[in-house]
Amino acid sequence: MKLSKSLWQTYKETPAEAEIPSHQLMLRAGLLHKSGAGLYHYLPFVYRSIRKVEQIVREEMDAIDGQELIMSVVTPGELWQESGRWDVMGDLMLKFKDKGDRDLCISPTNEETVTDIFRKGVKSYKQLPINVYQINTKFRDEIRPRFGLMRAREFTMKDAYTFHMTKECIDEVYDKFFKAYCNILDRMGLEYTAVEADAGAMGSADSKTHEFQVLAETGEDEIVYCDKTGYSANSEKAQTKRKAVDYFKTDKPVAEVSTPNMATIEDVCNFLKRPQTHSLKSLVYTGIKGEDEEHVLVLLLGDDELNEVKLKNHLGADHLLPAAGEVLREYEMPKGFIGPYGLKKKIKVIFDNEVDTDAAYVVGALKVDLHLENFIPKRDGGEFEQVDLRLAKAGDLTLDGKGEVAVKRGIEVGHIFQLGDKYTKAMSTTVLDQNGKAFHPLMGCYGFGVTRSIAASIEQNHDEKGIIWPKAIAPYHIYFALIAKTDEYHQLGEEVYNDLKKEGFEVIFDDRKAGPGFKFKDADLLGLPIRLVLGERDYKEKQEFEIVHRQTGEKTFCKREDLVSTLKSLLEKTK
Amino acid sequence: MKLSKSLWQTYKETPAEAEIPSHQLMLRAGLLHKSGAGLYHYLPFVYRSIRKVEQIVREEMDAIDGQELIMSVVTPGELWQESGRWDVMGDLMLKFKDKGDRDLCISPTNEETVTDIFRKGVKSYKQLPINVYQINTKFRDEIRPRFGLMRAREFTMKDAYTFHMTKECIDEVYDKFFKAYCNILDRMGLEYTAVEADAGAMGSADSKTHEFQVLAETGEDEIVYCDKTGYSANSEKAQTKRKAVDYFKTDKPVAEVSTPNMATIEDVCNFLKRPQTHSLKSLVYTGIKGEDEEHVLVLLLGDDELNEVKLKNHLGADHLLPAAGEVLREYEMPKGFIGPYGLKKKIKVIFDNEVDTDAAYVVGALKVDLHLENFIPKRDGGEFEQVDLRLAKAGDLTLDGKGEVAVKRGIEVGHIFQLGDKYTKAMSTTVLDQNGKAFHPLMGCYGFGVTRSIAASIEQNHDEKGIIWPKAIAPYHIYFALIAKTDEYHQLGEEVYNDLKKEGFEVIFDDRKAGPGFKFKDADLLGLPIRLVLGERDYKEKQEFEIVHRQTGEKTFCKREDLVSTLKSLLEKTK
Repeated sequence: MKLSKSLWQTYKETPAEAEIPSHQLMLRAGLLHKSGAGLYHYLPFVYRSIRKVEQIVREEMDAIDGQELIMSVVTPGELWQESGRWDVMGDLMLKFKDKGDRDLCISPTNEETVTDIFRKGVKSYKQLPINVYQINTKFRDEIRPRFGLMRAREFTMKDAYTFHMTKECIDEVYDKFFKAYCNILDRMGLEYTAVEADAGAMGSADSKTHEFQVLAETGEDEIVYCDKTGYSANSEKAQTKRKAVDYFKTDKPVAEVSTPNMATIEDVCNFLKRPQTHSLKSLVYTGIKGEDEEHVLVLLLGDDELNEVKLKNHLGADHLLPAAGEVLREYEMPKGFIGPYGLKKKIKVIFDNEVDTDAAYVVGALKVDLHLENFIPKRDGGEFEQVDLRLAKAGDLTLDGKGEVAVKRGIEVGHIFQLGDKYTKAMSTTVLDQNGKAFHPLMGCYGFGVTRSIAASIEQNHDEKGIIWPKAIAPYHIYFALIAKTDEYHQLGEEVYNDLKKEGFEVIFDDRKAGPGFKFKDADLLGLPIRLVLGERDYKEKQEFEIVHRQTGEKTFCKREDLVSTLKSLLEKTK
Repeated sequence: MKLSKSLWQTYKETPAEAEIPSHQLMLRAGLLHKSGAGLYHYLPFVYRSIRKVEQIVREEMDAIDGQELIMSVVTPGELWQESGRWDVMGDLMLKFKDKGDRDLCISPTNEETVTDIFRKGVKSYKQLPINVYQINTKFRDEIRPRFGLMRAREFTMKDAYTFHMTKECIDEVYDKFFKAYCNILDRMGLEYTAVEADAGAMGSADSKTHEFQVLAETGEDEIVYCDKTGYSANSEKAQTKRKAVDYFKTDKPVAEVSTPNMATIEDVCNFLKRPQTHSLKSLVYTGIKGEDEEHVLVLLLGDDELNEVKLKNHLGADHLLPAAGEVLREYEMPKGFIGPYGLKKKIKVIFDNEVDTDAAYVVGALKVDLHLENFIPKRDGGEFEQVDLRLAKAGDLTLDGKGEVAVKRGIEVGHIFQLGDKYTKAMSTTVLDQNGKAFHPLMGCYGFGVTRSIAASIEQNHDEKGIIWPKAIAPYHIYFALIAKTDEYHQLGEEVYNDLKKEGFEVIFDDRKAGPGFKFKDADLLGLPIRLVLGERDYKEKQEFEIVHRQTGEKTFCKREDLVSTLKSLLEKTK
């Protein structure tokens, strides 16, 4: 590709709407063209990268016997109504009607569709397991799309689906996918971690599910991990335990203490000169399931935070919200002074596992400006449950106590799920077993964000000058800049460019009329692994080309006759 | 691919809605799954074919310096409003609103989008020509989608766009595309013809445009061609001339003749014992352009037919309709007796080029049950235009008179257009020329129906047993059927299958528990180039495999040690 004949151009300014590095750099480096809110055209350079990712994904899916197909991007509402998700998917699904007044949507995911395909073609357990995948355009109608390809409305995703007779079978295939995802990310040259994830609405209790997180400071997800034990989980899911807690034990009875205008744990504990672990944090939440609402009082150690996902799953709720003011009034709970003792109206009470129910705590007195001391859950707490509800923190111990956890940030690029028979059941899909008896197959689904992984790669690999591509997904490998004004050098550059192409190098030739500063800035911004420079001065004096390695910054010089071997060995060393 | 572990299955029944062979065969052969009206999932076998076509197209586009990109499938209405096509595209465009109440559509084509990309990146004539393409999902909201992939609502198309400073430049690139399209269809193994086409609303008067038509009896398009001169055009566009016409010359004045209840040319000429070329056919049409309507009286030789496309283009109309009853009443023209003489109200009159305006004709008298004889256009016709409006017919001569034309049917799979500056002008897109002066670049657009070409291939290549794939786009090359019940033969089949895969053959292994009749029917229906059979009897007696060539029906036998060489040479000979 000769830049003089290309659409490509870079931009100095970062559009105000671009908040994260990948979005800023992709726009500045001329890789994307914004089509509309959350809609992007993939310009030729980045589309080469996308196709490289697609090919890696395809090879790894084929290697575990995936059959590639394509499901229509637009799908009719009927299937979604059959599974019950037409309403549940809610806002994220772009729904519309065609001229025939038929309900349609642009599919954000394809469990229903693939189940429909499956039930038409597969009748016997002997055909199982079935493993199909597609690499296709998806659409999620985010209200406020942002972050470029990281959270676009239209995006490219690989989604695979498997069907099985037994849990053993799906476990085996699930492990193959796990390995395939590691291969994909290894081949892409990214640093990542696979973490236990929350199955959310997709799975059932015993469903395995893992996220594949590309590590980056700007990641949206928090990963709790322990180098010593190998434990790794999304903070939404992470289960850890606190190091030894200084509990307060006493036999004294519950006693009121005046805490005027002290509505936070911090204020109260400072006032009482007690560590926060001598107090309990009281939170009231409302879980919504279908048309039912359930209110719940949650108690955690004073310095712990609630993990809302854990609470939502424990309640089996579709949605979870902090209780509204009117709910608190109904239960006569004054804000800032909520507590578990002397409840005016019955409410479900849950203590977090880290609360020692034999210890004594400061809690809200359910009266303004008053707290209680010496509240001992077992003695004073009436009927309650105790489960794990706290958010894991850096410095916690793993559940087995063998290691300390830390927290890092990641970008989810893959997610693999065991779905149980949720969809095959909802869609009356059965297969006959050895005895001719119909059963609902177990299903797995396995997503990989193709365009998102490009953004994640840039979040992980960039510097103040621009993008730094890993070799496997770089649009090209060599940025060949001509720094010369004479026709003679232009001619020489052209020859070298053609030679390199003939040798199979992926090279772009910057033959534009522009100075070295301009070209080097563009080269750094675009971030191909190697910058090769033919400069009139260097060449005249020493017959040498300059080679700069983007990942290491190393600079070398090289004669024309050594170019091919030098570039080859440099590329081999490139990550 | 082992069929025992695949989704694949064939169907005996042809769904009633499938009217043409490609649609019937693709459903029966288990290649498609209907998702909704005009929406199809491409199942694994046919998706392999689609990807093969895509790769051929991609290679040919890259070979003429095309830069591949992807434009978002969903595009905002703004651009279409800017070009003026938001309303003009009308029903075929699937429009909807997102949650933010923004106008969106699923793009049926991308002239606006690519012009928007172009104007952001290209500033100087030096960057021209620009040549970009994409292979992407498109959507046309056909009211009554039918014919399977031939006229689906969602489909895959390659669309390329070029930008130029001069007519010479676009002509040169246009010729390259022409050649590239020939290469694509040659490589796909299809019989086709490139025909002059009607530019319709897309182009301007001097725009070149060609269609690439795959020849098939079931084709929707009529192609007028002459083997001798090489002339070839869509019948909508074809210009030919009649062989010598027996005109009637006389000096007699116009005279009424009673023709009671004779409202057709045939009746009148039979009654008068005159050939139909002694009469004129009078037609009244209404051309609609924006909010304006224009009525026109068209006269052709009695046995000629009007080419409506030619008339529409001549009038520069957006739409063309036969005049409504009330229009005829307004002009006092009784049906069956319309004519050009003694008009009660002024109307534009156009004679077809084949009308000798010095000859005398029978025409309607504008009075019920009356015709006129001896109407001589030059003498009696008042003010009129004369242009080419007739539909070319088999047996006509080429315009140069050197050859006779015939008519055959085709399926349009490609269409290349010169668009002039229509879009760059409408969208205020300029580039600076050598003198720093802004100009609107000329544009070309080049479509190729990827999924449609698969359907066209099947229309052209099938028999009563099923599909016959050309080698280049067959899902696989070999259908290896095992006809044996013992484990020993199953084991042997498995070995041979693995050997063939290792040798690089694209092979599917029919290891299902089914009889030979069932498997051979499936093999013929799917239509891979070669059927290889391991039958217990043949092998036991003679240690031979049976090989059947789908295209020729030839059958041979072969020992295991000769399998690889035999299959290789057979595939080499396969179209």
